Amino acid sequence: MTDPSGAAEFAAIERIAARLAAGGVGRPAGELWIGDDAAIVVIGAARVAVSADALVEGVHADLSLTTPADLGWKALAVNVSDLAAMGCVASRAVVTVAGPPDTDLDGLYEGLAAAADTYGCPVVGGDLTGAAVLVVSVTVLGDAGLTPGPVTRAGARPDDQIWVTGPLGGAAAGLAALRRASRGGPAVPGALRQAHARPVPRVAEGTAARELGARAMIDISDGFGADLGHVLDASGVGAELTVVPVATGASAAEALGGGDDYELVFCAPAEAPIRAGFADRGLPEPILVGRCVADRGRRTLADRPFGPSGWAHAIGDPGRGTAAGPGGGR
Amino acid sequence: MTDPSGAAEFAAIERIAARLAAGGVGRPAGELWIGDDAAIVVIGAARVAVSADALVEGVHADLSLTTPADLGWKALAVNVSDLAAMGCVASRAVVTVAGPPDTDLDGLYEGLAAAADTYGCPVVGGDLTGAAVLVVSVTVLGDAGLTPGPVTRAGARPDDQIWVTGPLGGAAAGLAALRRASRGGPAVPGALRQAHARPVPRVAEGTAARELGARAMIDISDGFGADLGHVLDASGVGAELTVVPVATGASAAEALGGGDDYELVFCAPAEAPIRAGFADRGLPEPILVGRCVADRGRRTLADRPFGPSGWAHAIGDPGRGTAAGPGGGR
Repeated sequence: MTDPSGAAEFAAIERIAARLAAGGVGRPAGELWIGDDAAIVVIGAARVAVSADALVEGVHADLSLTTPADLGWKALAVNVSDLAAMGCVASRAVVTVAGPPDTDLDGLYEGLAAAADTYGCPVVGGDLTGAAVLVVSVTVLGDAGLTPGPVTRAGARPDDQIWVTGPLGGAAAGLAALRRASRGGPAVPGALRQAHARPVPRVAEGTAARELGARAMIDISDGFGADLGHVLDASGVGAELTVVPVATGASAAEALGGGDDYELVFCAPAEAPIRAGFADRGLPEPILVGRCVADRGRRTLADRPFGPSGWAHAIGDPGRGTAAGPGGGR
Repeated sequence: MTDPSGAAEFAAIERIAARLAAGGVGRPAGELWIGDDAAIVVIGAARVAVSADALVEGVHADLSLTTPADLGWKALAVNVSDLAAMGCVASRAVVTVAGPPDTDLDGLYEGLAAAADTYGCPVVGGDLTGAAVLVVSVTVLGDAGLTPGPVTRAGARPDDQIWVTGPLGGAAAGLAALRRASRGGPAVPGALRQAHARPVPRVAEGTAARELGARAMIDISDGFGADLGHVLDASGVGAELTVVPVATGASAAEALGGGDDYELVFCAPAEAPIRAGFADRGLPEPILVGRCVADRGRRTLADRPFGPSGWAHAIGDPGRGTAAGPGGGR
């Protein structure tokens, strides 16, 4: 999730993970706990992928710009995306909603149900309660008992190729355009509005990447720079990027640091048949953006360094629609 | 969960269940969705019990009376209780926390971890984000692939005996005592404080009831009257009660309508070896409180009618500690 206080979140998560690891129940072999897009746990005879994210009105969604149905869609879609980023498919969801008495529950659940129908992930239970602010928390479950997989953040190796499933920055550009429109600016093109309000988790792409040999993957929620940084940190490698694909209507800065795009970034050995495999499955061709290097301190885009919070200051803004990359929406 | 707007919640849940049932994914055989203490879903080779509840500061917990650690404990414990009410054991949890920047996360997670350790249900993932009010949403998972079981709310039949796993009202009495103490009243006895602040899910009791032949069960979160009413409504039967057990320090009104006790109520055929089976397992003897009857319109306690929101007005308050029943804490 995009979190205005990301640094604090990571510090708290590390502290919490240490506390929980000290608890009475040790992590069994074959399970994966806090620290990746989803957890992997053994329940009965199954390995289950599970992820939970909360969306807060005013933090993750501005209901003066989008609708309760958009919030419902997004709350489910971002969790489906978390499982996709492990190469897993979310199949069931539970939802807790805490909100004020005037919350448009019908609208909210209309959006939840639309995403549930679209991704085959029905809402099977949950809870409704009162609260001063609207908080929608979704947990999704999916089968992780697949071979090979699931794909963590930690498996990238030097010389792996780095791929992105689509052009970036549309969500940030859409949000900026909606804000301008709310102040009397021009109407927002449908594709940009959708990119912000109705993100599309890349479920088939995640499964394809896993099946084709990806060994590290993440979804782009915080921003390309930050999220690729998580993969590099977890894998202990560096990266040399040659290009970043920019969505139509977005700037390079939005593509690099905007977040909320929910495209996938994955790392795979050069011999993995990524292009052919995606084509065989009828999926849009992923974009080769660079490669991993052994020097974990090296992180460059076109030979210029970048930091974990995006490249905006490192590369400047070459102007809307003019950055390198395919630049095509879909 | 205790919900100040319970009626609105049930109306919304019915509307939502209808909307979701109309969606693209039909409920497969062997699954149980919205409307019981937990959902049962098939993931890979497992049947998984899953429940989610949100606790909101100021609605479910008053941090001027209890601590963030108590809130963390309760958030996990009430979900463990939901699975216990199906006769299932929660084994993994995910937690989302939305709260203000000054939230005592360490205290909150200390309580979560204490409950996780106590019930063998570690927190394996989740999300932290900012919000104007503290909302803690917990989802628990457990193996439902057991024979017999899980135990729903809908299986009670005429002449089934109705059992309660322990005396009631301690949580409500504890909350009332904490409120009095905050206004300068006497110090609160430890057992009453614990009953409110650190509810104990009846996990072993739920498993025992399932194994011994219980065919309907629920945990007491909204109140004995309301929760038994859910079982009677779902099963299409009435009830004749002879007694209600009152916890030490609680009033009959608190026992009947207070809620938040997390004892279990279950219905079992008269031939089920409930007392012997609980004794064999070293569990406190459950209390026989009455029986189910075919007339679904009949709901009496000692021959006087009661309603779904408790018996307080129907039976009056015989005074603290004097009501029928064992009256013993434990």
